[in-house]
Amino acid sequence: MERRLDQDLDRVRQALLRMGGMVEGMVAKATQSLLERDNQLCIEVIESDNEVDHLEIEIDEACHLILGTKQPTAVDLRFLVAVMKINSDLERIGDSAVNIAQSVVQLNDQPPLKPYIDLPHLSELVQAMVRRSLDAFVRRDTALAAEVCQSDDAVDGLYKQLFRELLTYMIEDPKTVSRALHLLLISRNMERIADHATNIAEDVIYYVEGRDLRHSSGVPEPTRKAI
Amino acid sequence: MERRLDQDLDRVRQALLRMGGMVEGMVAKATQSLLERDNQLCIEVIESDNEVDHLEIEIDEACHLILGTKQPTAVDLRFLVAVMKINSDLERIGDSAVNIAQSVVQLNDQPPLKPYIDLPHLSELVQAMVRRSLDAFVRRDTALAAEVCQSDDAVDGLYKQLFRELLTYMIEDPKTVSRALHLLLISRNMERIADHATNIAEDVIYYVEGRDLRHSSGVPEPTRKAI
Repeated sequence: MERRLDQDLDRVRQALLRMGGMVEGMVAKATQSLLERDNQLCIEVIESDNEVDHLEIEIDEACHLILGTKQPTAVDLRFLVAVMKINSDLERIGDSAVNIAQSVVQLNDQPPLKPYIDLPHLSELVQAMVRRSLDAFVRRDTALAAEVCQSDDAVDGLYKQLFRELLTYMIEDPKTVSRALHLLLISRNMERIADHATNIAEDVIYYVEGRDLRHSSGVPEPTRKAI
Repeated sequence: MERRLDQDLDRVRQALLRMGGMVEGMVAKATQSLLERDNQLCIEVIESDNEVDHLEIEIDEACHLILGTKQPTAVDLRFLVAVMKINSDLERIGDSAVNIAQSVVQLNDQPPLKPYIDLPHLSELVQAMVRRSLDAFVRRDTALAAEVCQSDDAVDGLYKQLFRELLTYMIEDPKTVSRALHLLLISRNMERIADHATNIAEDVIYYVEGRDLRHSSGVPEPTRKAI
């Protein structure tokens, strides 16, 4: 009754994509809750975290089972290692979406600080990075993965700009401190989601090409001595 | 010429402990740089990040190699999965220490906001969690790992207290905003390091007992902040 390895791998891939769709939806909904001042949406985001946590464990356990019983090698082994890493990043993206929703709940108690322009833009950039990193994974598309890594710079620039603007609010008017601080934490969580999408894109490159691009400039590193 | 599996595993364990010692030292040094207003220490922390990044990749590659060539099973397989997860958490602890050092550089440009009492205390709690989570790993001591998970509550309590205090500073005196914000970001990074130590402790329990305690009621949940 032993299933074939590629069927097992395909089930894991499907579960990971379901997880990706869930957390991407959480980020979108958390942003919508900010723009529409809708606490019900915040609650939905916070509640869906449980499902994400369970899915993370399910995916991890499926990977461990395959590793332990089917002894995959080469590209299949790299696939499973990539799935375990991507799984962890997706779960943390879900956590960041929850953090954003919790800040929005605090903000909705007070009048709006300002019209939001940069923050929705930041959120769109970040959501696109998550979506494209998973597309790159499905299509084994390293060029797309490299694009995702590059777009992290735009996110960092926008985050720094928002940070300075919000700091100025706080300094100029003490009444804005609490709201500006929550907006700052929301921006920070967005920036962190972009980092996770970048991690995912790097894992895709490792999986497809068998080289590790973390902490490098995109140029393959010289071979490192074994431990 | 094939080395025995347990020798390979032991090398990985040694490398992981070296990594743990490095990042724990970075957290200690970043805290010292804050208390002694010493920019040189900040630079040392920021510079050691490179070494941590390389060690992370070395450890990961060693694990992949063992997985791909020695096909470990049962407890050895769980050990390797735990090492890869702990490795990733240690690298992120290093990143948090760098974030702290970068905030300290900004703080050292300005007169001190207040005598630091809670922050060094928070740092000590957090460093002890990192150290004890790795001790639990070495000794396969699940009781110690469970203690680490429980001490996360004390860290969360102290973080919330610091957050409220710093927010009050910002609201009462606009001149303190920038400094209070950096202290807040430092506290936030400490709290995040405690979360990583908790993850490590949970991985130890998975490795020793083969059960997954994440997101369960067996151990306090990985904490999520209201802010």
